[in-house]
Parts: sequence; C-alpha cells; structure tokens
Amino acid sequence: MARQTVAYDADGLIYEFTPTLEPVYTAESGESLTVETIDSIGGAVQEDSDVVDEVPDEVNGATGPIAVEGAEPGDVLKVEIEDVRVTEDRGRVLTIPGFGLLQESDEIEEPKTRVTPVEGDMIRFDDIDVPIQPCIGTIGVAPTEESYTTLVPHDHGGNLDTTDMTGGTTAYFPVFQEGALLAMGDSKAAMADGEMCGTGAEISTDIDITVTVLSNPGFELSRPVVETADLWKTIASAETLESACQLANEDAIALLANEHGFDETDAHLFSSLVGGLEISQVVDPLVTVRNAIPKEYLSSPF
Amino acid sequence: MARQTVAYDADGLIYEFTPTLEPVYTAESGESLTVETIDSIGGAVQEDSDVVDEVPDEVNGATGPIAVEGAEPGDVLKVEIEDVRVTEDRGRVLTIPGFGLLQESDEIEEPKTRVTPVEGDMIRFDDIDVPIQPCIGTIGVAPTEESYTTLVPHDHGGNLDTTDMTGGTTAYFPVFQEGALLAMGDSKAAMADGEMCGTGAEISTDIDITVTVLSNPGFELSRPVVETADLWKTIASAETLESACQLANEDAIALLANEHGFDETDAHLFSSLVGGLEISQVVDPLVTVRNAIPKEYLSSPF
Repeated sequence: MARQTVAYDADGLIYEFTPTLEPVYTAESGESLTVETIDSIGGAVQEDSDVVDEVPDEVNGATGPIAVEGAEPGDVLKVEIEDVRVTEDRGRVLTIPGFGLLQESDEIEEPKTRVTPVEGDMIRFDDIDVPIQPCIGTIGVAPTEESYTTLVPHDHGGNLDTTDMTGGTTAYFPVFQEGALLAMGDSKAAMADGEMCGTGAEISTDIDITVTVLSNPGFELSRPVVETADLWKTIASAETLESACQLANEDAIALLANEHGFDETDAHLFSSLVGGLEISQVVDPLVTVRNAIPKEYLSSPF
Repeated sequence: MARQTVAYDADGLIYEFTPTLEPVYTAESGESLTVETIDSIGGAVQEDSDVVDEVPDEVNGATGPIAVEGAEPGDVLKVEIEDVRVTEDRGRVLTIPGFGLLQESDEIEEPKTRVTPVEGDMIRFDDIDVPIQPCIGTIGVAPTEESYTTLVPHDHGGNLDTTDMTGGTTAYFPVFQEGALLAMGDSKAAMADGEMCGTGAEISTDIDITVTVLSNPGFELSRPVVETADLWKTIASAETLESACQLANEDAIALLANEHGFDETDAHLFSSLVGGLEISQVVDPLVTVRNAIPKEYLSSPF
C-alpha cells in the first residue's frame, strides 16, 4: 500500500485533544503514513523582529486526528516513528512573557526571538552550528473524559515535549476512544531536555509513522511509553516535577513487577539501581518527566 | 610522591559540613590520594533482615576533611576522580519510613532491605545481575556560613547523589574556606538517576583522586560543576525540583554567556537547544538536578 500523506492544510489541524474528535483520515492497523506538520507558532515568526507577546490561544496545531481501524478503549496504539524531516529553511527559539523556566528573572528579556536558519543538517544559532535532531513536541490521542488544549500534556500524550519522540523510536499510547484518534505537531529542529526558555527550535516537519493497534495488550497502559534502541521510558505529566516523578516511577514499578514477578517494593528498590528519572520539559502548564529502564531488564510489556 | 591513603578509621569521618572543619590530612595542590569510605549506613545493614526504621542521626559518614594547601575563598578546587572501587562483598538498597519518592504510597513496604551481593563486576538483585558502576553519593567542601549535615546537598556539594561523580570525571567546587576541606563518602555500587527509593546499592569504596587548587579562576563558581568526557554539568540543589532547575539553568547560562559573549537571554535561548536538564536525586532534604552542556559548545571555564 502506498504511504498516504496526511497534510495539515487539506486535512485539518486541532488545537485541543477532546474525547469526541472527528477523524480527518482513517488508517488501517499497520498502515504507514506521512504526517505534515506546521511549526508551533503557525508561521507567525519568520524573523528575529517577529516576537510573541503572549502565548497564543491557538498554539501547537496538531495534524489529524487520524483514526486507526479497530482501536478500542483498553487497547494500545503503537506508533513507530520512522523519520522526522524538517521542511522549512528556518526554526525559531523564543521567550514569551509569562512563559518559561526563568519567567520571573530580571535578566531574561521577554519577548525575544532568535531565528535559527537551516544550513544542511545544521541549524545556526548566532554563529554556532547545532546538529538538527528533530523531535515531535505534541503527539497524543483522544483523552478519556477531559479535554486538553495542545499546550497541555497529560495521560493521552499531548504537549509532552519529549526529545525521544524522534525518528527510530516507537511511542505507545493508551487507547481511550474508538479509533484512538492520533494527532501530532509542534516539532523542533533541536531541543534541550527541559525546553527551558519555553521552546526548542520550532519548525515544520514531515513525519513518517506506522500505526498499529495492539488489542488485548499484555499490560494495561495508563500513560504514554516510548521505546528507544536501548530503553523503555514511562512518561508522566503533573502539576509539579515531584508529582510527575512519582507517576513515572509508579509506571516503571508496574512494568518491572509485570516482568520479574516482583512486588511493588522490590520493583521500587530495583528501579533505584538502573536507568532512572529524566526531565522532558519544565515549562508547560503540566510538566513532564520520564523513567528510563534499560532493555536488558525489561522486554516488551505488550 | 607516593599516593597517600586517607582512611576513615584512622583519620576520621564527618557527619556535618561546617565552615570550621579541622583537617585530618593536608594535601599539596596536585597531590594524588586514595580515600577510603564506608557505606552510608555505617555497616549496620549486612542482611535482608537488617532494616532501618528511621533515617539515622548520623548517616553518609564522609572521610576527611582533607585540606589542600593554598586553597583560598574564591578559588576553585578541582577534584579529578580517577577511580572508585568497591571494597566489600555486598551493597544494600533499602526503604526507610518517611524517606524516598513514594513514602506516601500504600504499595511500598517500609522499612525493607535488599542486600545486593557483589559477584565479580556485578551486583545481584534477586536473580538479576547489574553491572557495578560506582558513584560517590556525598562529596563536598566546607561551606561558607551555614552548616549542613551529610544528608543535605547544597552549594558546597554534600549529599549530591549524582551518578556523574564516578571514575573518569572531574568535579569542581567553589572554595569557601581556607584549605577547601574536602570530604567524601556514601558511595553506591549502582544508582539510578533519581535514587527513587532513597538509596542506591550503598557500599564501601576506595576512591582515587587528585586535588588541585585553581587560583584566580576565570569563572566565579557558585555551586559544583562536574566535567565528563563529553559534557559540562552544572549541579544545583533546592527545596523543589523546579527551583533546582532554575538554579542549574542560571549557572549554565552564566557559563554559556562567559564562553560566547551572549547576554543572558541569548544564553537562555541557546541552553534550550542542546544538552539539558537531568535529575540527580529526588529524595534528600533538598533535591538535586544538573544542566548538561555538550563540550562542543563550552570549553573549560576555568
């Protein structure tokens, strides 16, 4: 089957993950797609002089939603991210008043924009070349009952701003609604763990994915998980980093208990020895952390 | 000059970093030493049945302090960590009531101990072999005015519980008192970033270091920094992870501004593109994070 393209212009763009999303495309389980995404600011920032005075009402437009045939609540949606390619000649990194880790600091100018031109496989910041390592900032499925704007991460995914959402990894989402209803956007050409100023180098991308429904999965998934070459990582978002760490560690404990037959305490003790907690982002309305477990201690839970 | 051994039994052990520590040994700048350390619980836990009902008043006994000749307030103490070797046949990982990331959870048993026998270059947890990757939990110098028990991390170092404090890295501490007065202990045979249950695999070690005073350093250091093969990492401890992230990012901004001539805003924007925030530990009275900067963007600041 030829790879279908889901384009934001023809097929829509969402700014909120709701339980009742209408799909713009319906994929078969196992189908490969290319998803075209715009930058998080929707093209409004093209030069250093284009500054953003406040977080827009509509930000992180996500292409989709894509229904996947056969996905039912309780299933897991497997999203193999085969490639993320930048599709414009510049990214942009910016501060916005009232946003970002250091928004209270007198030393940090807000708003300020730095456009980062693309030059081959690099972006340029001032006179420094930074390798393009694209990641998808916002990726998720229709949530269970609440709705979440595309600025917010939660158990459905959403604005996870997690550098592991990149070519070569596989993301797994709990299915809360029939069809799962996957959407994604808000890519970055480069982003530090933490996304401290509030953005990475925001950029439009084409994303190659293959979506597969895992019916009756061997493990009940509460929140997203991402699989890299070497690690399984639970992903959790909450009001504080401490709360997010607790959730991410509880999810890791559940995976380790499931794998090794440990009780929760032994799984907790073991989780304190290998891999560990990682920061995704510290700037969104809920913050996001991961708990990474090396694959030598955890086979596929599904 | 032969490498001097500083042994905890003959030479002392501190449980508090104070401004007025008395040195047990005085090293020349550039001298290489071996520091013998005991496990954080002081040998009290040898079997699974040895549980710890509360955090002891004296924990994380640190060998030292070691004065370094010529170190004056405002200098930087460079500590090359050449090797950390485990020196007993078992580690121990444990929960303690009122301590640890999940201390409020009904699912986690407290107190509970798991002894992790050493077998070659592995420790064993249940029937799982985990490679020994030793790190120093508590390492620091005499603080400026306040005193801190060896359970607490702060700007002087102390209980940083940072996996990068391991063989092959170099730690840098601000010198607050004449002689710097370095002490270390609380090693782990293995530890996850986060140290979620409250400990790693606590174990006694021999630590090979070389201590050097950097007088009139080119950069004013407020808190510890660690240099790995590829990265410079600022290290900051605070009441919350959010506050620690702010401090660690501010320190990274200062380093990047110093290197590239950036103003604080540009340094902040650039810090959001490469490296990023990492979690050291989420369980001590103050929590600790790092901000990692790849060396291609930051030469030695000193």
